[in-house]
Amino acid sequence: MGRKQNPEQRRRELCDAAIRLLADEGIKGLTHLKVDRTAGVPDGTTSFYFRTSSALLHAVAGRVAELDLQDLTAATEPPAPGENPAAGLAALVMRAADGPGFVRSRARLELAMPSSRDPGLAQVFALHQQRFVDMHRDVVQRLSPDADPAEVAERTYVLLTFISGLLLALSRGDRTIGSAEQLEAIICSLCRGGPQPEQG
Amino acid sequence: MGRKQNPEQRRRELCDAAIRLLADEGIKGLTHLKVDRTAGVPDGTTSFYFRTSSALLHAVAGRVAELDLQDLTAATEPPAPGENPAAGLAALVMRAADGPGFVRSRARLELAMPSSRDPGLAQVFALHQQRFVDMHRDVVQRLSPDADPAEVAERTYVLLTFISGLLLALSRGDRTIGSAEQLEAIICSLCRGGPQPEQG
Repeated sequence: MGRKQNPEQRRRELCDAAIRLLADEGIKGLTHLKVDRTAGVPDGTTSFYFRTSSALLHAVAGRVAELDLQDLTAATEPPAPGENPAAGLAALVMRAADGPGFVRSRARLELAMPSSRDPGLAQVFALHQQRFVDMHRDVVQRLSPDADPAEVAERTYVLLTFISGLLLALSRGDRTIGSAEQLEAIICSLCRGGPQPEQG
Repeated sequence: MGRKQNPEQRRRELCDAAIRLLADEGIKGLTHLKVDRTAGVPDGTTSFYFRTSSALLHAVAGRVAELDLQDLTAATEPPAPGENPAAGLAALVMRAADGPGFVRSRARLELAMPSSRDPGLAQVFALHQQRFVDMHRDVVQRLSPDADPAEVAERTYVLLTFISGLLLALSRGDRTIGSAEQLEAIICSLCRGGPQPEQG
């Protein structure tokens, strides 16, 4: 990196290095010095930009949320005529299986439990989380247009919870679901709802 | 704790303190000294029983797996006549919403990402994981006796992934599902499978 680099750009690059570090070593491995070394900048650079552990953690979370939101926005185009309404969601989720999506997904999971202890950290993810929920609800509504509001709410919750478990599995290396097409079929089945259990 | 206490009993008590610490402060908070303070024993006690960070981490994971296995064994009694086959699983999962089950579930989630980086740590959970999978498959088979093996495998995977997402949600404080009965109905719906999506 050049010495005269734009501070915003430098912050982003440090956060991107911190994301790789989180993915590789977990939250215990996230130190200012290790971010310097991972980013290939002089020792002390990360401390200059992010004075405390908390500042660094919030900045990394912000960068994860920013990148997540970019992906989400790209994936929430209305389905083309004839396209399965689950296709965009399935493709978005399967990005967690490879490349930068895998790295970011691991980093995001490392922040899941810390953010349950830190309302400020949870707040960083709030906008993305709301739009992620909306995307699931939209898929449910498109796939089961006759469902009543309570059914839509329940199926949205079931779908979100399944996808959350799948993101955890993918981040831990599970590859039982190997393609977006396979996931699309499962999402369709979940959205349309199984036969309801008999009530006594 | 008495000075002449049985070493096995002392190890268990230190691990139980470490579970509470993991749940409250996360993996970054798990230090030998903090375990001493949480357990109310003299400084240095935890270091005496578990020489390294890794030894402590593996011991805590072993204790979580041991307690999980006790709960799982109690929950996998065959269903009584007239009882819903999903009842045992639903009750087991909802233990993560309160009390010691909530604490242990949070601790277990703190170990999920570290165990994806540490095969020895993953191994500690392997027996429990296999029996947990078997329990899910058994519920699927009881609830959809006409499903073929591929359908059983897929529904078992979907159910496991949903439950994994739900344990993450419960551990983070989500209480959308408020009772074992509500969860039981959702499990039934997932196990029986929705109508299959039309293939073109």
